[in-house]
Amino acid sequence: MGLVSLADIRAAAVDIAGVVTRTPLMPTPWDAALWLKPESLQPVGSFKLRGATHAVARLDPAVRLRGVVTHSSGNHGQALAYAARAAGVPCTVVVPEGAPRVKVDRIRALGAEVVLVPPARRLAEAERIVAGTGATLVPPFDDRRIIAGQGTVGLEIVEDLPDVEVVLVPVGGGGLSSGVATAVKGLRPSTAVIGVEPLLAADARESLAVGEVVVWDVERTYRTSADGLRTHLSALTLAHLRERLDGIVTVTEEEIGAAMGRLVRDARLVVEPSAAVAVAARLFRSADLPSGRTVAVVTGGNVDPTLLAQVVTAP
Amino acid sequence: MGLVSLADIRAAAVDIAGVVTRTPLMPTPWDAALWLKPESLQPVGSFKLRGATHAVARLDPAVRLRGVVTHSSGNHGQALAYAARAAGVPCTVVVPEGAPRVKVDRIRALGAEVVLVPPARRLAEAERIVAGTGATLVPPFDDRRIIAGQGTVGLEIVEDLPDVEVVLVPVGGGGLSSGVATAVKGLRPSTAVIGVEPLLAADARESLAVGEVVVWDVERTYRTSADGLRTHLSALTLAHLRERLDGIVTVTEEEIGAAMGRLVRDARLVVEPSAAVAVAARLFRSADLPSGRTVAVVTGGNVDPTLLAQVVTAP
Repeated sequence: MGLVSLADIRAAAVDIAGVVTRTPLMPTPWDAALWLKPESLQPVGSFKLRGATHAVARLDPAVRLRGVVTHSSGNHGQALAYAARAAGVPCTVVVPEGAPRVKVDRIRALGAEVVLVPPARRLAEAERIVAGTGATLVPPFDDRRIIAGQGTVGLEIVEDLPDVEVVLVPVGGGGLSSGVATAVKGLRPSTAVIGVEPLLAADARESLAVGEVVVWDVERTYRTSADGLRTHLSALTLAHLRERLDGIVTVTEEEIGAAMGRLVRDARLVVEPSAAVAVAARLFRSADLPSGRTVAVVTGGNVDPTLLAQVVTAP
Repeated sequence: MGLVSLADIRAAAVDIAGVVTRTPLMPTPWDAALWLKPESLQPVGSFKLRGATHAVARLDPAVRLRGVVTHSSGNHGQALAYAARAAGVPCTVVVPEGAPRVKVDRIRALGAEVVLVPPARRLAEAERIVAGTGATLVPPFDDRRIIAGQGTVGLEIVEDLPDVEVVLVPVGGGGLSSGVATAVKGLRPSTAVIGVEPLLAADARESLAVGEVVVWDVERTYRTSADGLRTHLSALTLAHLRERLDGIVTVTEEEIGAAMGRLVRDARLVVEPSAAVAVAARLFRSADLPSGRTVAVVTGGNVDPTLLAQVVTAP
């Protein structure tokens, strides 16, 4: 299976300029060797805009006007809607009935068409739309262009901190971690790229251990607050991580909550639980991590307001 | 009185690189012609780090090791402590007895010495330290180097959005607004630079109207939640604003609260009330503002957690 290359990521960086925000590296007042890469500052609140923008930019002109479709109602759905609008491409997002109203409203506000279906029919409905309209399906992570787009996070990290020694990146479906590992190891092979997962959704660690994609039951992964990291890897992302990731550490729910509080109070960033796992690893798992100048990727800020209020006022 | 020049601000930009974060301009999902300049992302959570870093960098080598002193326990005190530590210069912050413990702890954590005195004795104590030690007093805004440092915000705005048409900037003591107006009008005279004040602390508007510094009673200004904007202008900042500011608009407390909620929920920024006034003006006072591509300066994120929780969960 052909892996994404550093050149692919450099090409993606050209595509996304002007749509995606060039996020800074932020030093942290509590740890002189830790910087944050705050992707929560993207217009739709997550790094997902990078891959979506690159995927839309690379559409064949012949199919472009037929639009794009996805069956993710989360950060990828919003990101694709934003990217499509910026490029003047029609977008349809298939959303499960019962999804939070705020998510549906946000996708509609970005100009995308929302199709509500029973949860089990999401993928089938997206494929039906593709068959009927000739639109292009843009999946959330199992796609070379998505991986290349997310990898621009890694390019920017090395550009801003050329002597970075450790990069900590959350692992869900593996699109971001595959891209970041490809960029960072390609530019600076001595830098360690470490994935971080919730202990309650450590399927990527298990997949890497056994060498094939392991799927955890929804009953297990549902328990983590880090809803963006419940997804399992694909064969494509596993192939990238086997080759390029230096290891995976896990963090508990309590550690995720504490890292969220730290980020809100001391870095003034609004973050979702999935976005706090890398900082949680640095705070609570440093014994399991290489030492040195470290960047933690803070992936997104689309958090439930009630949870945010709880985290902020926790002692 | 000699005003700060664009060249002064360009020199400050060189001084602050490496200590101050180069904040991005963030597009907003709710307003296609509005960008945010999120100074809440600075290491100490506010733009004050810019002026403080420049002031410390310009210390005469002969007095450098005698240190710096200030009598601001707020954002400027933290900023000066951070800037001094980064430059290896001793720092003393005179803090009024009764100041919130968290502020005192933060200043101490940045390596500065904290001297607690009765509120009325703050300035006298700072001057006593200067007389006794030969340290340099670094005031929060009434200083050409501070104004030049804060003006780098304006340089970066025009660099990132060369066709900006309106810049909205909060006005407290006038250091930031003087610097930003100097930079923006110097680079692009056709751009309107508009100050924003709380209606409950609209002393700068009144000062500009009458042509001299008007001081409002603490009993009046105390009522605004925007504690960073209760300060009055100095002769130096008034002189800059008379020459270079295009106007001032005011916003109510309700509008400030609503703008804070918008920034937290839809821009994923943790902001203090003072930092939300420019966005409040764009949201609620657009009839009083020039139209066109607008940048709102979001000045800082040091907010009381209880207030933040209230704002986030407000309907």
